[in-house]
Amino acid sequence: MERSLEIIFELIEEKKYALVREELLENNEADIAEIIEEINDELGTEKSVILFRMLPKDISAVVFAYLSSDCQVDIVSGITVKEVQNIMEEMSFDDMIDVLEELPANVVDRILMRTDKETRKLINQFLNYPESSAGSLMTIDYIGLKKEMKVRDALQYIKIHGMDQETVYTCYVMDGERHLQGIVSLRTLVVSESYELVKDLMHEDFISVNVMDDQEEVAQLFKKYDFLALPVVDKENRLVGIITFDDIMDVIEEETTEDFERMAGVMDDSDKEYLDISVMKHIKNRVPWLCLLTVSLMITGAIIARFELLLSQAIALVAYMPLLMGTGGNTGTQSATLIIRGMSLGEIELKDVGKVLWKEFRISAVIGIVLAVINFGKIMLIDGETMLVALTVSISILIVVVFAKLIGGLLPMAAKKMKIDPALMATPMISSITDMVSVVIYLILATMIMGITL
Amino acid sequence: MERSLEIIFELIEEKKYALVREELLENNEADIAEIIEEINDELGTEKSVILFRMLPKDISAVVFAYLSSDCQVDIVSGITVKEVQNIMEEMSFDDMIDVLEELPANVVDRILMRTDKETRKLINQFLNYPESSAGSLMTIDYIGLKKEMKVRDALQYIKIHGMDQETVYTCYVMDGERHLQGIVSLRTLVVSESYELVKDLMHEDFISVNVMDDQEEVAQLFKKYDFLALPVVDKENRLVGIITFDDIMDVIEEETTEDFERMAGVMDDSDKEYLDISVMKHIKNRVPWLCLLTVSLMITGAIIARFELLLSQAIALVAYMPLLMGTGGNTGTQSATLIIRGMSLGEIELKDVGKVLWKEFRISAVIGIVLAVINFGKIMLIDGETMLVALTVSISILIVVVFAKLIGGLLPMAAKKMKIDPALMATPMISSITDMVSVVIYLILATMIMGITL
Repeated sequence: MERSLEIIFELIEEKKYALVREELLENNEADIAEIIEEINDELGTEKSVILFRMLPKDISAVVFAYLSSDCQVDIVSGITVKEVQNIMEEMSFDDMIDVLEELPANVVDRILMRTDKETRKLINQFLNYPESSAGSLMTIDYIGLKKEMKVRDALQYIKIHGMDQETVYTCYVMDGERHLQGIVSLRTLVVSESYELVKDLMHEDFISVNVMDDQEEVAQLFKKYDFLALPVVDKENRLVGIITFDDIMDVIEEETTEDFERMAGVMDDSDKEYLDISVMKHIKNRVPWLCLLTVSLMITGAIIARFELLLSQAIALVAYMPLLMGTGGNTGTQSATLIIRGMSLGEIELKDVGKVLWKEFRISAVIGIVLAVINFGKIMLIDGETMLVALTVSISILIVVVFAKLIGGLLPMAAKKMKIDPALMATPMISSITDMVSVVIYLILATMIMGITL
Repeated sequence: MERSLEIIFELIEEKKYALVREELLENNEADIAEIIEEINDELGTEKSVILFRMLPKDISAVVFAYLSSDCQVDIVSGITVKEVQNIMEEMSFDDMIDVLEELPANVVDRILMRTDKETRKLINQFLNYPESSAGSLMTIDYIGLKKEMKVRDALQYIKIHGMDQETVYTCYVMDGERHLQGIVSLRTLVVSESYELVKDLMHEDFISVNVMDDQEEVAQLFKKYDFLALPVVDKENRLVGIITFDDIMDVIEEETTEDFERMAGVMDDSDKEYLDISVMKHIKNRVPWLCLLTVSLMITGAIIARFELLLSQAIALVAYMPLLMGTGGNTGTQSATLIIRGMSLGEIELKDVGKVLWKEFRISAVIGIVLAVINFGKIMLIDGETMLVALTVSISILIVVVFAKLIGGLLPMAAKKMKIDPALMATPMISSITDMVSVVIYLILATMIMGITL
């Protein structure tokens, strides 16, 4: 692909477009899409539209589906509405919905004007499903069979309709009212005798999801059962669509990226790649949390300011403040991250809160003692401070570690309980809280142990 | 499932095992496995083995494959070698390899003793592929066809052999020496006429991977092309196995979890769930990085100690130290996380280092100025400190933010260049470095601006 891209760049420069087309079609659809994206980024929309228009009609729809939504919008702006519509007709239904969701409203309206009433109604219905619902992910391109069909008839039906469907490997058996009665795999049909009846081969204990179910629940089901596709039904158990594994892989990737970002205090509402996001948007994504965290750090500062007298009388204490705050942040981060990830994989549930806290308590006690002993020794032997200073720091460390690990375990679970995304309770939040608490613990302990009054 | 589990708990207590069996078999294989896991955790291996032995032979193999490796080892220790072997025979080849990898060596030897020489050789070969190579993921259960076959013959072949294979939806066309010549989907076979030849229907521009390729590369291919399965070939382009999408979904999940853990300074070499890991193991996973970080925090402390005279003369400066260190950590974390995630998704490559740093520089300059202005105002107006203090803090913040974002962008890429996992260059590492640097910048700046000599 890389090589092909270079050649195409050169050929475009030399304006040898017939050769460009030849070279372009040497690649498969996913790679053609990547080449067009590169051309769009490097040479502008005008050139990428020229390339796109070179593609045969059937290929262009597949390539279009592979493009990023940004590039799709660029291409659409450069071609006629008629051309857009041709692409739409070739695309699978769920890809078409994805595209329509991203396009500007006036373009969508113009496309819908030209489609027949039935399709228009269906498209409007799909565009109205909540953004992360099963309904928004599903496609209507599936194979529907009848109970009374023989294997022979079913295979004949698939032979005729199979090429237009998202998948033919799982087929759905419905009654006259579209109630889902069973599912049967193409594998079962192919290995069975031609006179057998679909109703004797289908599974009736299938798993289905509701149109309004959240995509995260759907993803969990795919991971648990290794499905190729999952049927989506409405309230009356009527089949309205199917979700295929490739769409779910995209969902899992997006949800994971969102977790990573939120855990770092970045609020990105797009699913663009890092390099495609403008500097201004990057700043908007990052500033809100930083400001919030700044307020918390100001409070920590204010606490310290209240102890200025103590600190000026025992300036040696200042040198150990980063140790305490840092250790609190680091130990709390470990716990919070493991709990957040465990919850998003469904390994840890809210009812496990007792187990989690008891586990973190024992872990933190041991780690706290280890770190306290190391620091006690180091402060006495290497720093040559008094035993009172060493004692103050070590006891503070022990308390801070236990506190940080408990809060790191508890906060994500509390967030989930309150329907807030647990990923928000990661490093920045945890370390802000532990910063504050560790400073308070340290300075109060210092006042007590070192016998200095405020 | 939850309901079923409760009933089974009660029935076991009442020793009504015939009813337990009945209730158990009401569930599908994945759920039966989950029930047995719960019983194993709550009531011990003895009870879970009893339940497992209740299962019909064909179901027990599938259930066994769904169990966690811990539970598999528990079950194996409670049943006879003959029983283990029966399960192995029913399992798909790649699941069997997965199980054998986890079992104690003496059990594996006893199982291998009873298998025929050919299988034993194959198993040994598979057990020897590097842990995260394509070879370790693949299965040998696939449909192989010949070029000259008619569609009719191919479908007949699949009808006979289809049930024993991992997938029948992608079929592989080979010559006499097992060289891979093309692939053809079952969909294509089903929609084609029975007299057509496989060689006219197969794709020859297929994508394959080598046995020694890393699983992360394989996962990228699956994500890019939405494959159901991918052929694995050896150096001579002979087909040695296939990898299916469900195995890749597991790989992606494991790799992502590893990223999350490493980014929090947790070094977990198992793929067990949080609640299944012992307290001792949790401690071992977490202590090494904490100790390393403690050393770095000690150095930060030592730097501060060198400035004790300055600090005792201007104690107000101490209260702003958490602000500087915290802001450095938070801003650096944002950048590092985005870069690490971008690289693991293949969105950011090493050649983009210039673009990344330039982007981060512009972002950090704006964010730095915003935070500097906010803090300057707050220090002057609310804290009522001198302008010299406000100036020292604000200029330090600007420098620290720019430095933190650049190092947060650079370090993960440098790690990748040096073949170190970029995930290690996340929060703990970044905040340790920014802590140190921000203290140095702050205190040197204070010395300069406030005109106090050391």
